[in-house]
Amino acid sequence: MTLTSETRARRLAALRAAMAAANLDVVAIVPGANQQYLTGARFGAMERPTVLIVPREGECRMVLPHFEAATWAKLGVEARVHLWQDTEGYASAFAAACSGLNAGRLGVEGQKMRVFEEMAVRAVLPGATLVDAQREISAMRIVKDKNEIAALRRAIAVSEAALAATLAEVRVGISEREVEKVLLGRFFAAGAEALAFHPLVAGGPQAAEPHASAGDYRLREGDTLLFDFGASFGGYNADITRTVFVGEPGAEARAMYETVLEANRIGRAAARPGVTAGEVDDITTKVLEASPFARYILAKTGHGLGLDIHEAPQIMRGNGEDLAPGMVITIEPGLYVPGVRGVRIEDDVVITETGAESLTSFPRELRVVG
Amino acid sequence: MTLTSETRARRLAALRAAMAAANLDVVAIVPGANQQYLTGARFGAMERPTVLIVPREGECRMVLPHFEAATWAKLGVEARVHLWQDTEGYASAFAAACSGLNAGRLGVEGQKMRVFEEMAVRAVLPGATLVDAQREISAMRIVKDKNEIAALRRAIAVSEAALAATLAEVRVGISEREVEKVLLGRFFAAGAEALAFHPLVAGGPQAAEPHASAGDYRLREGDTLLFDFGASFGGYNADITRTVFVGEPGAEARAMYETVLEANRIGRAAARPGVTAGEVDDITTKVLEASPFARYILAKTGHGLGLDIHEAPQIMRGNGEDLAPGMVITIEPGLYVPGVRGVRIEDDVVITETGAESLTSFPRELRVVG
Repeated sequence: MTLTSETRARRLAALRAAMAAANLDVVAIVPGANQQYLTGARFGAMERPTVLIVPREGECRMVLPHFEAATWAKLGVEARVHLWQDTEGYASAFAAACSGLNAGRLGVEGQKMRVFEEMAVRAVLPGATLVDAQREISAMRIVKDKNEIAALRRAIAVSEAALAATLAEVRVGISEREVEKVLLGRFFAAGAEALAFHPLVAGGPQAAEPHASAGDYRLREGDTLLFDFGASFGGYNADITRTVFVGEPGAEARAMYETVLEANRIGRAAARPGVTAGEVDDITTKVLEASPFARYILAKTGHGLGLDIHEAPQIMRGNGEDLAPGMVITIEPGLYVPGVRGVRIEDDVVITETGAESLTSFPRELRVVG
Repeated sequence: MTLTSETRARRLAALRAAMAAANLDVVAIVPGANQQYLTGARFGAMERPTVLIVPREGECRMVLPHFEAATWAKLGVEARVHLWQDTEGYASAFAAACSGLNAGRLGVEGQKMRVFEEMAVRAVLPGATLVDAQREISAMRIVKDKNEIAALRRAIAVSEAALAATLAEVRVGISEREVEKVLLGRFFAAGAEALAFHPLVAGGPQAAEPHASAGDYRLREGDTLLFDFGASFGGYNADITRTVFVGEPGAEARAMYETVLEANRIGRAAARPGVTAGEVDDITTKVLEASPFARYILAKTGHGLGLDIHEAPQIMRGNGEDLAPGMVITIEPGLYVPGVRGVRIEDDVVITETGAESLTSFPRELRVVG
């Protein structure tokens, strides 16, 4: 999405307010969600440093590989540009970009900036104290505006269409990889712009591994089949999990499914302004803990979702952050029986003035396919 | 690909030889190409530290989110595992993993390790000198074995099949995005396991931006249309560029194309054992420099290719690294006329005992489609 200059100015002001609150003099922002949010640029995190330097006051500066100059110019971002070429290296571009900066406290994105980028910035700001300000820098993105929500809705719509088309082809005997291939094909047929992440398609015992990837396992009667997947649109990511049964489940599997579904429902109902992220995890996880399946809990309830697939607020015990209108979070309780099966049901919900609306609407009821 | 214990042991020995040569006592390896190469693990670089700690001698140690335990155990890697949970954090797992280590010089992957991972390791090895050892750690991967070449061939075969099927649908008036959608669909229909990277589909003036992404631009008669794309197989990435014309090109465009094609041919012919990576760039780039289009050169000739899309050796002036049998590099000369057109022809070649073999075989001759 192209950003208007008003949008860019508003976002930069929000960043600078966060910098003031955290007493950061300068922040250095690498390719990824925050750089895109501020500038519209969608550079990849490759081997060429591409870093936006934002002082608390005054001009922003952009350290840019020279051959990205045209791509950058089209964005219309107000920033001093410091180009560098492969043959000469990037040290002097960083030096020029940071000259005259008073960087007592230098904030960086700890989960994004890599060591070579850090070293390049440290080399030209030797007196600065480096601070992991992932949270403070990303805070400007935590509440989504209506254009962002619209992008998430589009990403979710194509994702759900792809899943519906895929489930129609699942049969006993099909392999995880074959199902994955169908899903990927349906994704782009449904109009997906890009994948948010490579989808997880995990059957039977593999579904007990939260991040399993598709292999040669062939689905058997009664297996769970777990899909954790999403398209992205304009950089905004869907992140959806549905678990179906291939053939009729046994009584225990059915009871497990209903437990997870109840936790998902309770979690979605609990999410509202003023409730903390930690409380939503507590309320959701207690449903699982009160069941006969408590020993099969593996992970927290969810995470924020937007330009990053996992971002603030973490829906995790102990997180005292209040939910607020416009935040988008996942609610994804699960139960994982090692070597046997896994069940997870994940929705993407936006906090409203009075509660939460699930942006995902794919049916959650126990479904038998094949 | 699952690794045998012999393969893992051989790779670990190669890493330790490189550590000895670089006087590194310990290396810390994050999710990505090197971690996969040593262990077979394909963890993502997410918000939970997942770090392999390799001392020069003695047991390896793995800092692992607890819910990845089952995925890790299946790999059969010999390493002491230090699990951690979201609710308790990872500091104590790092402390236990690094206890007793004599880390005078600690090597990390500068282009992969992020600041929060670095901080976690530094906190438990406060006396260590941190060294960016991206090059030394990755050196074990620079020569590919026959299984790795076979994986690259599979990735390339599906990529080329997808391109062939896509070109059949290109017409004057179709938009970049529509072409991209066709390509993505054909990718998975052709059996792609995953995308190496989101493909670049750039028409007309956008083709002059080396990393342009598809937009709403509709192709006109005489435009160049540039595809830079690749599937991956088992983690090994194809990286191919072809440029076609939509309708008959004018004389200048045709001459530009033939110049790039000649540079590509000369570059592939120059690549052989004992020639340096820098010399291949020189020889290739001189063809462009000697043409009437010298002012439209933007980038170096290429890069190494494997589990990373851009890895050593960089095919760039000044790189004195000798090419050797089993190295895989791209040869991708290009010319970029700002606001008008771009031409790039990129092949993936493996160095043989006597020269180089192009793993890519999609026709390079000037082609008019639509």
